[in-house]
Amino acid sequence: MLGVLRMIQKKRHIRAFCTSVVGRSIENQIDVEVAKLLALKAKVAEDEAEATGGGGGQKFLLKTPKGTRDYNPQQMALRQGVLDKIVTVFRKHGAESIDTPVFERKEVLTGKYGEDSKLIYDLKDQGGEILSLRYDLTVPLARYLAMSKISSIKRYHIAKVYRRDNPAMTRGRYREFYQCDFDIAGTYDAMIPDAECVKVVSEILSGLDIGDYVIKLNHRMLLDGMFEACGVPADKFRSICSAVDKLDKSPWAEVKREMMEEKGLDESTADQIGEYVQLAGGLELVEKLEKDPKLTAAKSAVSGLEQMKKLLKYCEVLGLTNEIRFDLSLARGLDYYTGVIYEAVLTAMPEMVNGGEVEPVTLGSVAGGGRYDNLVGMFDPKGKQVPCVGVSIGVERIFSLLEAKQAAEGIKIRTTDVEVFVASAHKGLHEQRLKIITELWDGGIKAEHSYKENPKLLVQLQHCEEAGIPFALILGDSELKRGVVKLREVTSRKEEEISRENIAEELSRRLSLLRNGDF
Amino acid sequence: MLGVLRMIQKKRHIRAFCTSVVGRSIENQIDVEVAKLLALKAKVAEDEAEATGGGGGQKFLLKTPKGTRDYNPQQMALRQGVLDKIVTVFRKHGAESIDTPVFERKEVLTGKYGEDSKLIYDLKDQGGEILSLRYDLTVPLARYLAMSKISSIKRYHIAKVYRRDNPAMTRGRYREFYQCDFDIAGTYDAMIPDAECVKVVSEILSGLDIGDYVIKLNHRMLLDGMFEACGVPADKFRSICSAVDKLDKSPWAEVKREMMEEKGLDESTADQIGEYVQLAGGLELVEKLEKDPKLTAAKSAVSGLEQMKKLLKYCEVLGLTNEIRFDLSLARGLDYYTGVIYEAVLTAMPEMVNGGEVEPVTLGSVAGGGRYDNLVGMFDPKGKQVPCVGVSIGVERIFSLLEAKQAAEGIKIRTTDVEVFVASAHKGLHEQRLKIITELWDGGIKAEHSYKENPKLLVQLQHCEEAGIPFALILGDSELKRGVVKLREVTSRKEEEISRENIAEELSRRLSLLRNGDF
Repeated sequence: MLGVLRMIQKKRHIRAFCTSVVGRSIENQIDVEVAKLLALKAKVAEDEAEATGGGGGQKFLLKTPKGTRDYNPQQMALRQGVLDKIVTVFRKHGAESIDTPVFERKEVLTGKYGEDSKLIYDLKDQGGEILSLRYDLTVPLARYLAMSKISSIKRYHIAKVYRRDNPAMTRGRYREFYQCDFDIAGTYDAMIPDAECVKVVSEILSGLDIGDYVIKLNHRMLLDGMFEACGVPADKFRSICSAVDKLDKSPWAEVKREMMEEKGLDESTADQIGEYVQLAGGLELVEKLEKDPKLTAAKSAVSGLEQMKKLLKYCEVLGLTNEIRFDLSLARGLDYYTGVIYEAVLTAMPEMVNGGEVEPVTLGSVAGGGRYDNLVGMFDPKGKQVPCVGVSIGVERIFSLLEAKQAAEGIKIRTTDVEVFVASAHKGLHEQRLKIITELWDGGIKAEHSYKENPKLLVQLQHCEEAGIPFALILGDSELKRGVVKLREVTSRKEEEISRENIAEELSRRLSLLRNGDF
Repeated sequence: MLGVLRMIQKKRHIRAFCTSVVGRSIENQIDVEVAKLLALKAKVAEDEAEATGGGGGQKFLLKTPKGTRDYNPQQMALRQGVLDKIVTVFRKHGAESIDTPVFERKEVLTGKYGEDSKLIYDLKDQGGEILSLRYDLTVPLARYLAMSKISSIKRYHIAKVYRRDNPAMTRGRYREFYQCDFDIAGTYDAMIPDAECVKVVSEILSGLDIGDYVIKLNHRMLLDGMFEACGVPADKFRSICSAVDKLDKSPWAEVKREMMEEKGLDESTADQIGEYVQLAGGLELVEKLEKDPKLTAAKSAVSGLEQMKKLLKYCEVLGLTNEIRFDLSLARGLDYYTGVIYEAVLTAMPEMVNGGEVEPVTLGSVAGGGRYDNLVGMFDPKGKQVPCVGVSIGVERIFSLLEAKQAAEGIKIRTTDVEVFVASAHKGLHEQRLKIITELWDGGIKAEHSYKENPKLLVQLQHCEEAGIPFALILGDSELKRGVVKLREVTSRKEEEISRENIAEELSRRLSLLRNGDF
């Protein structure tokens, strides 16, 4: 084995030497060897599985993969409620939906995410294409637009994305998580679609009962101009941007240290950046910065300020002034943004009961996005650009928050829609139940019954009460002989006899009365 | 490099030798080496991407991975319509929903799918757990039940699953595809939940406008009894079952050849199986088989027939007699079935226009499932069983069919819900538009406008007609001065003036009239 190890240690040098001589063949060689080692490993795993597995009692860890979770019916009901509200807002703004595969050819994702690229999940090379799980829904959208030659669309996409990040599941950070994206692609006039994205975020967050929030706004051109004005070399703009992005989690001193020690800025440059990133405000701040001679010497800062001014103006017309803040510390980590950037954060956290104790929880960002005008062009064979702007709602954090809130308030959501339970009063009625429930189903009524031939009446009625089913039909021989069945209103426990004939119609009538009374 | 190759060739022998000496360390060694080689390969790929990528014009193939596709808005509208109908049926039967991660620890999937295991997608070993993409929703359900210690649930799960199969995309066979599963888990009386699954499939297929269908039924115990009666050795039951499963695609002669040449049956055994698998019918066939002395000598055949009889009886009560067929050739490929098995096939295909020509298309199976009583026990630490039965709707095939049908009939579905378009009659009105559309959005009206400052009126009105938007509000300075705006009914092109004040209320009123007239 030592021979293999030594060979691997030498591989870099060998590769440097070989590449010039044999071109890609060194890479193929690596492929072949990796495949063989992996096959060997798989075989070992299989042999072990065969030896330990089979016939009752697993020998392995019974869990979901790290950073992932199952959703139980309660969680699904909550999730569906949140997603429905979000979709309603997206569709209110005229968006249509698309879907893309969960994995992409790896090269589609390469070079799009900057420092975060290391978090991409790759699929195993099983012969064929090299694939990766999608990291967001933005890059697949750009690939889709270029591939389908679409030059304008307003679309939403709700789907799971994958990041090999450090999970913090109590705070809603998972390795598999939903994104809800709304994007406007097309060549339009400045800031009109950009402002609509802010409106969409505001409508969604206002409708979700998760407390106060603020939507932070900034502009990549202004950031670049600011970096230029402070003396950052152009080739360091993106990596310094990544450092600024950490300001929402780390103190300035820490970010400054990163800028100087890891990214090689001198202290005076870092300090100048430190001055700017403390600034936040509204239109008045734009106007103040327009008079800053150092900043306005940088062309892109002037353009950025001009666009910010327009965006803030439109936001005012859209009634958003109280919910937005122009914030120079907002940077966003991803490489592909070229214009306005957004991030919504919750400002007041409701108190939550967690394991019996009331504790404040910081949930941070619940939405983010920005303009990315060059991404589609990276995919188009002729480099044709389609300007895009969009936002992504961080629903996992919202789910976590609402879940904790419901637990604290002792709220229990119904997880089924059953309207009628068909019960047996005594033995020997299961075929009668099947006959009646068939009529109910065929009449569009949501109904269930026991899957036991002779269930106990008490057990059946308890199930109705626990599951919140409004009506129970109780079948009994003596009633059936008289052509009637007993109808029980579950909450009041009132019972009356109704005709066996046209039973679906009668129940539909009563259910529609109940619904109208309810709402 | 030759040294490495030789080492790999020798690895199996070394491993056999080392394992006894150093236990698992050989495997860890392999892990370390694989990781290094993969890192090296990734580095090579990255270097190349950097060299070729960036700034316009991609150098790689612009496509989705093999066997996958994007859904455009038209396809999404169709898909959502189909899924909504399916969910309605699931919920009518009282099902609640769950969700599980898209990948599982590989060991969860190992040993569950028989010959199909080779089709599982594995994730790359990037350090940490060994993961695979889910192959179906049944095994994740069983893992969920065991892990959450749930002994009864009626759940549906609609999600994508992954199989490295040969795609046949025109016929709706993809590598990434939706499954819509409905399962009843719990210890109940024989065939009552099993019959409800048939009812669920029947309601869904009847509601989808895809023509006639038949739901084939069989029983694994009857199949096993039949194999026993024909002289198949017990350890070949599953592999002979896989061969029988191919009868829907291959002629008997081909299946017989596989049984004899690949699976080592003698000809007389194969011929006896050949006799049985030609049989199909209803209750009368069960009764005939109950008198077959060869078959009834096998205990499990007797149990299987008894259960089939009960199932057919319940199906009759549920009004399903005309849609079902007891079919001894139905086998289903998967290992985990233990009782009744189902498969729904379309019997009459509508003619479709494909590239201008009318051609009949065979779509085969559109739903399948069965009972799997031992799967949960494979995950439970103490081997505790939770009996389960369920069906899976093959929606991709249904999507393909409906898509072709709509294309043939020239049907175009609306992909957005926009009710009102806010238009400018002339230049300089974009802030006025923003003000009015804000009122509409805040009033819950689905509205859009042009993202250009000064769009041409004709272009705006054309968009309304093409997108099927019912109303257009046309803003003009002279009207605004008089406190009114023009409201245009898009299809009739009728225009009238309405008050600028309370405009959202007025439009809500008109939209609700329109909706009531529509439905």
